Amino acid sequence: MEPLPPDRLFVALLHHPVHNKDGQIVTTSITNLDIHDIARSARTFGLGGFWVVHPVPGMRALADRIVWHWREGLGARANPSRREAMGLVAVSADLDHAITAVAQRTGEVPLLVATSARSRAGALPFAELRTRLRAPGPPRLLILGTGSGLTDPLLTRCEEHLESIRGVTDYNHLSVRAAAAILFARLACGQDDDQ
Amino acid sequence: MEPLPPDRLFVALLHHPVHNKDGQIVTTSITNLDIHDIARSARTFGLGGFWVVHPVPGMRALADRIVWHWREGLGARANPSRREAMGLVAVSADLDHAITAVAQRTGEVPLLVATSARSRAGALPFAELRTRLRAPGPPRLLILGTGSGLTDPLLTRCEEHLESIRGVTDYNHLSVRAAAAILFARLACGQDDDQ
Repeated sequence: MEPLPPDRLFVALLHHPVHNKDGQIVTTSITNLDIHDIARSARTFGLGGFWVVHPVPGMRALADRIVWHWREGLGARANPSRREAMGLVAVSADLDHAITAVAQRTGEVPLLVATSARSRAGALPFAELRTRLRAPGPPRLLILGTGSGLTDPLLTRCEEHLESIRGVTDYNHLSVRAAAAILFARLACGQDDDQ
Repeated sequence: MEPLPPDRLFVALLHHPVHNKDGQIVTTSITNLDIHDIARSARTFGLGGFWVVHPVPGMRALADRIVWHWREGLGARANPSRREAMGLVAVSADLDHAITAVAQRTGEVPLLVATSARSRAGALPFAELRTRLRAPGPPRLLILGTGSGLTDPLLTRCEEHLESIRGVTDYNHLSVRAAAAILFARLACGQDDDQ
């Protein structure tokens, strides 16, 4: 499998609207290590950009400050590889900002790809999305939910639904950081056989 | 590929001796989310246990307190799935404690499997370790380093060296949480083709 071509795959981390574990629709807080880990995984596996999406200005200011520290502040000199990863990160108020930014960059409106810990009939196998990412067609924006995942209207809005990551039992409670790493590795390098 | 059988694969997260990015041998701090993320990934992919290894009593007390909160304290009721993942975690002063514990559990001294972000001649391909984990023979204890990775004496002590995770460029700075997730997924489910 050839490596992922540039500017074919992007990712957005949504903090609203998402479910909490009781099924309510909530806004989650920014988690510092989500930004670091997903940026590092995105850089390693060749994604084109990573949007941290949060509707609350104060939370966006926190995320901006974290990104600034590693891109421009003291962190940039202390850790050049972190600086490089943080170069992929943008902070936006809603998903539409991220979509517009991808469209401006690539010249095409991206298809939205939903991710979920729950399987869904008709979900795309990893191998299928891997192939589509290497064929002509629009870029993809992978949507990761925080909390207990994406809401139904958002899932309905997504053009493609990626199959869930399966463990060896029915226990399936990966962190979003862990799930992102596995998803990027599978889509970028083809290092899986979707057994 | 059949799922990983029980009690075949264990993991230890080392905080000493490890390198810092300047190549010095140091002791790193406990990171709360390392415990959470690696426990959740280990539970999802069927590992038998996860040792947080730290030589400093105060750091072990912190790790014990975190684990206790989610296993016995208020966290256990608030989040039963987290409780289940934290059930895999043990805190130990050195690697030998972890080895002894695996030997007591399985009746066999585990082979130590080194992991590294740098490739090494003769390293085991993922597919090969996957096969060995499903064949008769001792269980494996996967060694993850914090900081900038394991020291040479420790690498020399390991009986097996797993190939590194490759990205699409030479940038390879995954977090240990992300690397653990990808390694467990590949070894447990066979969802890669090691291309």
